[in-house]
Amino acid sequence: MTRFGENWEKGFRDMVTEAGINAINDAGISGEEINAGFVGSMASGTLIGQEHIGALLADYMGLNPTPITRVEGACASGSLALRQGFMAVASGLYDIVVVGGVEKMTDLGTTEVSTILGGAGDQEWELFLGATFPGLYALMARRHMYEFNTTEEMLAAVAVKNHKNGAKNKYAQYQNEITMDTVLNSKMVADPLKIMDCSPITDGAAAVILAPSEMAGSFKKEPVNIVASTQASDTLALHSRETLTGLKSAQIASAIAYKQAGIAPKDIDVAEVHDCFTIAEIMAIEDLGFFKKGEGGKASLEGRTSLEGEIPINTSGGLKSCGHPVGATGVKQIAEIVWQLRGEAGKRQVKNAETGLTHNVGGSGATTVIHILQKQR
Amino acid sequence: MTRFGENWEKGFRDMVTEAGINAINDAGISGEEINAGFVGSMASGTLIGQEHIGALLADYMGLNPTPITRVEGACASGSLALRQGFMAVASGLYDIVVVGGVEKMTDLGTTEVSTILGGAGDQEWELFLGATFPGLYALMARRHMYEFNTTEEMLAAVAVKNHKNGAKNKYAQYQNEITMDTVLNSKMVADPLKIMDCSPITDGAAAVILAPSEMAGSFKKEPVNIVASTQASDTLALHSRETLTGLKSAQIASAIAYKQAGIAPKDIDVAEVHDCFTIAEIMAIEDLGFFKKGEGGKASLEGRTSLEGEIPINTSGGLKSCGHPVGATGVKQIAEIVWQLRGEAGKRQVKNAETGLTHNVGGSGATTVIHILQKQR
Repeated sequence: MTRFGENWEKGFRDMVTEAGINAINDAGISGEEINAGFVGSMASGTLIGQEHIGALLADYMGLNPTPITRVEGACASGSLALRQGFMAVASGLYDIVVVGGVEKMTDLGTTEVSTILGGAGDQEWELFLGATFPGLYALMARRHMYEFNTTEEMLAAVAVKNHKNGAKNKYAQYQNEITMDTVLNSKMVADPLKIMDCSPITDGAAAVILAPSEMAGSFKKEPVNIVASTQASDTLALHSRETLTGLKSAQIASAIAYKQAGIAPKDIDVAEVHDCFTIAEIMAIEDLGFFKKGEGGKASLEGRTSLEGEIPINTSGGLKSCGHPVGATGVKQIAEIVWQLRGEAGKRQVKNAETGLTHNVGGSGATTVIHILQKQR
Repeated sequence: MTRFGENWEKGFRDMVTEAGINAINDAGISGEEINAGFVGSMASGTLIGQEHIGALLADYMGLNPTPITRVEGACASGSLALRQGFMAVASGLYDIVVVGGVEKMTDLGTTEVSTILGGAGDQEWELFLGATFPGLYALMARRHMYEFNTTEEMLAAVAVKNHKNGAKNKYAQYQNEITMDTVLNSKMVADPLKIMDCSPITDGAAAVILAPSEMAGSFKKEPVNIVASTQASDTLALHSRETLTGLKSAQIASAIAYKQAGIAPKDIDVAEVHDCFTIAEIMAIEDLGFFKKGEGGKASLEGRTSLEGEIPINTSGGLKSCGHPVGATGVKQIAEIVWQLRGEAGKRQVKNAETGLTHNVGGSGATTVIHILQKQR
């Protein structure tokens, strides 16, 4: 991956090529060996005026005539690209596939970007009426607090923990620790969510190389198996949901994923979850079955999701501290889990990590994509 | 599919649901039987402010929690969605898959739409310097005329033939025949391309249902096999190409497709090709091997691609007469070939059609997607 951040010195094309080349080098292959590619980007059309970025990627990585296809599912675009790569290999049509995710978000102002991101929700029923994403997640946070006595301190604990992890990640946008007071005293965005409860606007790209499991052992680095790849949909608009305190799409997709992998939530050693807002991480660790519904806030405050806790969550720093270039996030999550399973995560390494999970959400939960990865034994 | 046209009375959501329900009814299945979906749309983010349309489709078709994913490759988005559906079924992950394509283009003015469509080419090297798509294809037309003595009459013959076919198609935007004089005397857009050499701006949607071949026989209608699905990339910008008189991506993708299907160009009974401009159809029938390079114009003028000709091209009316809602076009091409192979094409039916081909181009040729379909015997 590239470093995530306000990469004013790098354009969209620079970042996606840099990540792609890093992935190729990591795998120890040459570009000529690549049969196909998929790239996730939510909003290149609105953010930089460029659609058709699959072909752009083939062009700028020197891969022509290799077919590369763009996939979009809002903030879940990256892991949807991974799913297409996974299916392409599983179908037998292609063997070696590059999967990338990219977003260049800092070329526009915050208001424009917020409007564009609103296109991940229901534009007719939410965005056009003024509901931006902090507002939507604030509704979820308020309901979670009402039903389960979740507190602002519990939300803040997620941000503090993720910055602690991000401080150990050279690719993270924010590599500084923060305190509970910093979060609680930060500017209110959408009550109860303060600016330090929100993930930032970020530029960045990430890429991985896929191959059939039986072939993967021949590459440079230790291979990691994808043992589950699932996706579920829910209503685009929040107002149509059965509940506001969890994402049904995440509950369904993860239940199928555990079944595909033949494991239970307790078997997960490390997970990257979609903490676009602190409340999102609390709902995620409940939806994924790591904690009972309503107990995610308390667990976060107690440090049970820290690097040393029973289930380390967002060792990369998550969206909050590592940054959230929307189309790239899903692929970054995969990269982080691969590094953890290979024992390459340095100061943020989880001991004996053998099984990892990624949870990538599109919009306010209309799409959730789950992947489970395991060390190849 | 929906009727293509200026569908002012129908929104994006209406059209994509209408096409999806038509496809489900045609297959004689219920929505509950659908395991997954893919939808092609080039520019919903810029055209209507809505990304994340996979989830939107699941929502509005009542298919939640069925996973639906958006695929984008400019004007080839529709057939790229079909490819993902094909791979999903081939991978064994899903059996019954819905594939849609949709674009709502007439909510904005022509200048805005032209700018958005420019995002299918190289925005930094072409669009931002003023080169819109008619200009890019005009360069190709001029070079083709220079090298092969292709004439404006030959270009016009393509438009006349496609309107003749479109007049027989109840889904077409323009259901009227035109004369050679109408084309030659129409307003100049980008010399030598006149307005009647150009495909229009269109609203519309199309959808198909995929299933494993061995299962397809159990549905209501006669099944059609996908015997080849290929895709190739070329440079995004025209200035980097080796030649201007043909699309290398189309030549490569079709060569692989013929190999996959185990057939030759002469075995194709009917083809839908990407006539975004009349010159594009002439290049296509050469790139696909139906005619030698340089002879496509003459063949068109001689009527060899008409309904009664040796290789009927664009029986639907093509992009020119049937219309070109960019993300929907690739799926419409598939629908037309399926109708032809089933003998359901009415007044535009090609006799004894057993094998058909679709040729769908993204941008000025940076992506070409080829599918070959055959009657299941």
